[in-house]
Amino acid sequence: MRKLDTREPDFRARLHELHDWDANNDPAVEDRVREILAAVREQGDQAVLAYTRRFDGLDLQEAAALEIPPAQWDAALASLPPSDREALLLAAHRVRSYHQHQRMETWTYTEADGTVLGQRVLPLSRVGIYVPGGKAAYPSSVLMNAIPAQVAGVPEIIMTVPTPQGQINPWVLAAAAVCGVSRMFTIGGAQAVAALAYGTASIPAVDKIVGPGNIYVATAKRMVFGRVGIDMIAGPSEILVISDGSADPQWLAWDLLSQAEHDELAQSILIGWDDAHLEAVAAAVEEALGELDRAPIARKSWTERGAVIRVRDRAEACAIANSIAPEHLELAVADPEDWLPEIENAGAIFMGIHSCEALGDYLAGPNHVLPTGGSARFSSALGVYDFVKRSSLIHASPAGAGTLGAVAERLASAEGLTAHARSAACRSKAHR
Amino acid sequence: MRKLDTREPDFRARLHELHDWDANNDPAVEDRVREILAAVREQGDQAVLAYTRRFDGLDLQEAAALEIPPAQWDAALASLPPSDREALLLAAHRVRSYHQHQRMETWTYTEADGTVLGQRVLPLSRVGIYVPGGKAAYPSSVLMNAIPAQVAGVPEIIMTVPTPQGQINPWVLAAAAVCGVSRMFTIGGAQAVAALAYGTASIPAVDKIVGPGNIYVATAKRMVFGRVGIDMIAGPSEILVISDGSADPQWLAWDLLSQAEHDELAQSILIGWDDAHLEAVAAAVEEALGELDRAPIARKSWTERGAVIRVRDRAEACAIANSIAPEHLELAVADPEDWLPEIENAGAIFMGIHSCEALGDYLAGPNHVLPTGGSARFSSALGVYDFVKRSSLIHASPAGAGTLGAVAERLASAEGLTAHARSAACRSKAHR
Repeated sequence: MRKLDTREPDFRARLHELHDWDANNDPAVEDRVREILAAVREQGDQAVLAYTRRFDGLDLQEAAALEIPPAQWDAALASLPPSDREALLLAAHRVRSYHQHQRMETWTYTEADGTVLGQRVLPLSRVGIYVPGGKAAYPSSVLMNAIPAQVAGVPEIIMTVPTPQGQINPWVLAAAAVCGVSRMFTIGGAQAVAALAYGTASIPAVDKIVGPGNIYVATAKRMVFGRVGIDMIAGPSEILVISDGSADPQWLAWDLLSQAEHDELAQSILIGWDDAHLEAVAAAVEEALGELDRAPIARKSWTERGAVIRVRDRAEACAIANSIAPEHLELAVADPEDWLPEIENAGAIFMGIHSCEALGDYLAGPNHVLPTGGSARFSSALGVYDFVKRSSLIHASPAGAGTLGAVAERLASAEGLTAHARSAACRSKAHR
Repeated sequence: MRKLDTREPDFRARLHELHDWDANNDPAVEDRVREILAAVREQGDQAVLAYTRRFDGLDLQEAAALEIPPAQWDAALASLPPSDREALLLAAHRVRSYHQHQRMETWTYTEADGTVLGQRVLPLSRVGIYVPGGKAAYPSSVLMNAIPAQVAGVPEIIMTVPTPQGQINPWVLAAAAVCGVSRMFTIGGAQAVAALAYGTASIPAVDKIVGPGNIYVATAKRMVFGRVGIDMIAGPSEILVISDGSADPQWLAWDLLSQAEHDELAQSILIGWDDAHLEAVAAAVEEALGELDRAPIARKSWTERGAVIRVRDRAEACAIANSIAPEHLELAVADPEDWLPEIENAGAIFMGIHSCEALGDYLAGPNHVLPTGGSARFSSALGVYDFVKRSSLIHASPAGAGTLGAVAERLASAEGLTAHARSAACRSKAHR
């Protein structure tokens, strides 16, 4: 873990080093993925079956076996202990309630001359949700990606989840059963992205693909973008905790580690001005590391990417947070409402010492798919917005076209566009 | 121009050919752009000055000369003939009025136990608007890109516009004067994108870059994406006109050509079922071609990319429109309101024979930056939405964290994430 201090002369350079992290594209991965995309595009189901055999060790004889039928999801849900099932249902309910606030409605307005202008909002027709399998099989990913699509009203939600060696995570199936998934296929990797983008005889082509995945999945998504929509490409996860010392150091240690345990590249940063408190948290982290199931991952993350930044005051703390633009910002302070106006850039803001990131990851309500790598400066959480398309509506009345046509003619002439000018002029003359 | 007919056996294949058009990346361009980005990133203003000398033939001795001061924009606005100035002001006013309907507000809600959840919406801090110079210097581009940012409340709007050989288009300067641009720099190409993305001593780094440009600009935007946000990469423009025969064929000819005159790769498609009418429009197009300032461009576009599609009925017309998902859809029909429910995918819908695309390009109100290449299936017009960032707000009350923490602990355990579970458990136990 690095220690930085704003009073040191090289602080700016060290801060820059901390968060200026570029994910490089790997040309070998790109070549591999290009090959997989082409094979699935040309050979359809046969290629998907072959890659699934090769990469997931799952030997299916026919394409129909790629689909996991809804009865199996329901069975998985029914098989969970009642309290676990209730936990899942509560999470789905809360996430749904939050996202309902994001619904966009169609609107129009009519001008004095009868011209109607507006914006029509429709759900996307069909979307694909990529859910990672194996060790990173997260039911919360299913909820966070599918529910905004469900709330948007997307009629067909196609989910893919790889099942290496046939291993199916019942939590993932159960999650699909409670959030509007339409069909599920037991595929993963670049071949799943290809199948969703191009369609095969058994797997329908979608309009947009969302969901996290490894470097092959991310590269495949980037490559099919344009043919289909994609969500952002997620980088390693980050948390930034600003502490005024009012939280138990132990609590903050768990918060910092809940990021570090995700991924060796994840980044946890603590900011404060109370030296003794900062040291106490750092010590608590060291101690807590031993208790984690995923201790090696968390230790590597904390050691190599973690940081404690000692600042002079609140203004410095906010300025640093804004320049980092963290995915998760915890304001572990007594008066978080008072801090809010000074915070400009953060994917999600956890206010006060009771609002730990883990609540947001699972069930507080907001989406846990958040902008990473400083992109909170210009982008936002996954939401219902990502699952609708807006069409502009222009219905000019004869009188409206008369007035506007004359002006459009003038502007088009200034741009040297004759046909635009003539097209507008026809309408304008017709009304005179 | 191609003629298609749904009654022909190879119709599907020919339709597919028509709109399955892939813009290929050119590796030579990519190498060139990579070099420019690196040079500007390392040498800042000096590199920008050198490229501006080389590519724009503009020999400036010092970086300060790269900026065009606001007094010069105001002078350009004042120099326009009064009726032209009024046209520009009316366009800006109407575009602004429309976009004001897109403003998003911050919202929060409070749960029974005192937990507050919400979404805070803030404008981006600083955005860059790329405006092409030279032959494609469009004042309407300035309005359509800057006004949504202005309405969003972006405090700093930085515009770049190349001025080859020092040629400045007064309309472009005048447009900047009426739509909230903060500063303007006389640069273009990949070097302008680099300067906006990385910043130089004289040109401030921005959070997002929008605006159309040539292949170098588009490639540069793609490459800096991640460090900054970008808008969509626009492909060639398209119009699809569905005609029931109620419009004068001459009108529709101008409409089709107003797309074709943009670009040799632009695509104009006419759909209808009345053979005589379709032929009359096609004949009117041939005749009108001779009258255009940009006749060679429009002729190439119409000949090589244009199409007339003869369908059996309205249902077929709508199905084809939805599968093409055009940037601009003109419903040149007597009862456009009645057609609307059958239209699923289109960037902008021009309803009725008085609503020509040219009105929308300049001043009807909706944005003219629209999804091309079929991407209206999953994306939408540029809007105020593109210039704001949303932060999720989570302020758990002690009681809320108590209840939710216990459930989060259970879900985290299902995912094997110890620190998440412990972090939630602390809050849960504190409340018991």
